[in-house]
Amino acid sequence: MARRDHRSSSLIPKVAASRLSKYLRYLEELSNRGETTTSSQQLGRALGVTAAQVRKDLGYFGQFGFPGLGYKISNLIPEIQRILGTNRTWNVAIVGTGNLGSALLRYKGFASHGFRIVALFDASTKIVGKTMEQLTVHPVEAMSTVLREKKVELAIVSVPAAAAQEVATRLVQAGVRGIFNFAPVRLSLPDDVAYVSTDLAVELEQLAFLVSHRDRELTRPPGDARAAME
Amino acid sequence: MARRDHRSSSLIPKVAASRLSKYLRYLEELSNRGETTTSSQQLGRALGVTAAQVRKDLGYFGQFGFPGLGYKISNLIPEIQRILGTNRTWNVAIVGTGNLGSALLRYKGFASHGFRIVALFDASTKIVGKTMEQLTVHPVEAMSTVLREKKVELAIVSVPAAAAQEVATRLVQAGVRGIFNFAPVRLSLPDDVAYVSTDLAVELEQLAFLVSHRDRELTRPPGDARAAME
Repeated sequence: MARRDHRSSSLIPKVAASRLSKYLRYLEELSNRGETTTSSQQLGRALGVTAAQVRKDLGYFGQFGFPGLGYKISNLIPEIQRILGTNRTWNVAIVGTGNLGSALLRYKGFASHGFRIVALFDASTKIVGKTMEQLTVHPVEAMSTVLREKKVELAIVSVPAAAAQEVATRLVQAGVRGIFNFAPVRLSLPDDVAYVSTDLAVELEQLAFLVSHRDRELTRPPGDARAAME
Repeated sequence: MARRDHRSSSLIPKVAASRLSKYLRYLEELSNRGETTTSSQQLGRALGVTAAQVRKDLGYFGQFGFPGLGYKISNLIPEIQRILGTNRTWNVAIVGTGNLGSALLRYKGFASHGFRIVALFDASTKIVGKTMEQLTVHPVEAMSTVLREKKVELAIVSVPAAAAQEVATRLVQAGVRGIFNFAPVRLSLPDDVAYVSTDLAVELEQLAFLVSHRDRELTRPPGDARAAME
């Protein structure tokens, strides 16, 4: 389930970090339902991992649970937020305010998890200068000044593939420390810049692949050697 | 980089499938630049894997390359599309036409890879009946009829977390075979329904985690035991 930043030589347990986000989502859900405690078993069931894995994941960062009592949700939520670094507000820029960028600007899940969109950029002279959700769209040329002024640390890149590397290079020069790339292209970045990416068409292709392969498996002759591969 | 559907006991090499999508993107890029051939080395460099890994990935499905000559791009593209199941058109429905859903409707990367959005659904009576990109927004209650009529096989779920499971259950009942879930919640689905998911806030949290941890590593005392974990 985890997305690894394979360019990085970091020692951080990213698979565990990815699960921490998911534990957090589930704990928030439990808390909204009025629950006050949970267990490794319950967390494991919700995420499809073993209770032992849950204890291991949470144990990386210290002891939170009470034997026989489980975890107090009101303690565990801020503890996981602290580990993830989301117990603070992060200022985020969006570069590319087309359909996807403007949807991301309005996406409520970011603000509720400590991510505040504070700056917008676009290459189109038709869009620059306009206001979206109370933010002015700046030209890419103004990036360095605006990002420093607004203390932006993270950026979302939602520009066409052909423009993404140039945008990323500008972002790095302007001091951005992490990039979330939606452009369907692999970016070349310095090792000290964190990187995650999502290619929506790739995800949909994977879904098509899964569906197609089930069809083929159903029609596959018994004993086909390909069935053994994984 | 691959996202595994860990509920499935399928024998499909999903990690390789995920890379196939990425090879395809890169081959399309090369083709657009007017290139006609490529090599395992070039593909590997572009994706950050070894040439041996590329040969292995492509070799799962047969022999495409010519020793010393590499791969003919015009052969390899349709071959990978065939393997992925994207050498045909897939009819896709979007359930939830809010900001994210409507951005996905307008996302050009889907259509260019064989995914055709043919049906829209929303729970809001304010939106149902409206037209978006020449498609009428249907009520969720009409799902079964509309999906069969329009021969929809895949669905994108972009509804709030609280509504996602009910929507998914309806989609499955209506015969949908694969679900791409954007709602920040884990869906319970029958094993024969394929599933991929993206939680945008989780991705951004991972980015915050990577940036925070780099800070902590810089300030960590030498020999700290936590540095060894992965």
